Amino acid sequence: MVRWVPGTPDRLQHAALELFAARGYEQTTAAEIAQAVGLTERTFFRHFSDKREVLFHGQQSLTDAFVAGVAEAPQAASPIELSLNALRSASAFFPDDRRPYSRLRQSVIDDNPALQEREAHKLVRLGRSLADALTERGVDDLTADVVAQLSVMAFGIAFARWIRADEHHSFEDVATDVVCRIGDVARQLEP
Amino acid sequence: MVRWVPGTPDRLQHAALELFAARGYEQTTAAEIAQAVGLTERTFFRHFSDKREVLFHGQQSLTDAFVAGVAEAPQAASPIELSLNALRSASAFFPDDRRPYSRLRQSVIDDNPALQEREAHKLVRLGRSLADALTERGVDDLTADVVAQLSVMAFGIAFARWIRADEHHSFEDVATDVVCRIGDVARQLEP
Repeated sequence: MVRWVPGTPDRLQHAALELFAARGYEQTTAAEIAQAVGLTERTFFRHFSDKREVLFHGQQSLTDAFVAGVAEAPQAASPIELSLNALRSASAFFPDDRRPYSRLRQSVIDDNPALQEREAHKLVRLGRSLADALTERGVDDLTADVVAQLSVMAFGIAFARWIRADEHHSFEDVATDVVCRIGDVARQLEP
Repeated sequence: MVRWVPGTPDRLQHAALELFAARGYEQTTAAEIAQAVGLTERTFFRHFSDKREVLFHGQQSLTDAFVAGVAEAPQAASPIELSLNALRSASAFFPDDRRPYSRLRQSVIDDNPALQEREAHKLVRLGRSLADALTERGVDDLTADVVAQLSVMAFGIAFARWIRADEHHSFEDVATDVVCRIGDVARQLEP
């Protein structure tokens, strides 16, 4: 019988989050995170460029999910449909049983300005990757920027609401509410 | 006759930008920036918490301009009108003769990931300040987040276009185009 063993980056990320939550981010070294899963500091830095990066291990997969949502949309999809498809595709990353983990991770980030900076920049880069994917589908530059950033913005607002203590709706339901509200207010912009 | 002398933070910011552009951000120390205007490293760090911060000296004034745009809007203004007023108020920060300075500053930021992180986080915080100002005007939480972030998003896209090498339109004209495009695509969201 073969037991599934999570990859090294996953194990490092989970150990890091536990240590950060217990002792604080500043008080935990990369060497201690590595030790917690029986590895060396050197191995840690083979996987992550710095200590902050360990909390963003899933970022590339999230970006890939957004981009795949564009790639897999029907040929006739409009720019906004492409970006909604991207958001739907990314929603699959946040099943209900991931919520406690996401809450804990966010509480660590919210306590540390350097982590908040890394997080903000990751979202900017996600928007750029998505805009590039839209441009490749023939969307013009300005529309690509607008719909990509609308999509990332909806994602960010939905995520912040989804992890609230009193929130029980699914990520997709919360995201749908946010998208509707965007439509409501933006429709009031003069044509 | 009294000659107007710019404040210390302004002088440090201009000296910093010149040095960063000439030698590179990493190759310039805070002490060297201070020396360039006849001050000490200690004075530099009385004004700025770290070397990166010197490039973001105008940020609080920009945030204040956004927030003033909300405060000064007519009582009956809708949430989206409040946020457009905030954006208009902030546009005044970017007259045409500031464009060369903004271009140079952005080229330094675009060359350095740590500066990009700081910049991304400043925009997130701008969005939060604006959302708070909207909440104070009685706008509900979700709408406040949505219109604040729409406004910051329009600002960011407009700024990036305004500093393009071949762009000659005013900041306000560029921002108006961006807002129109947001309206165009968002109107296609299903009600």
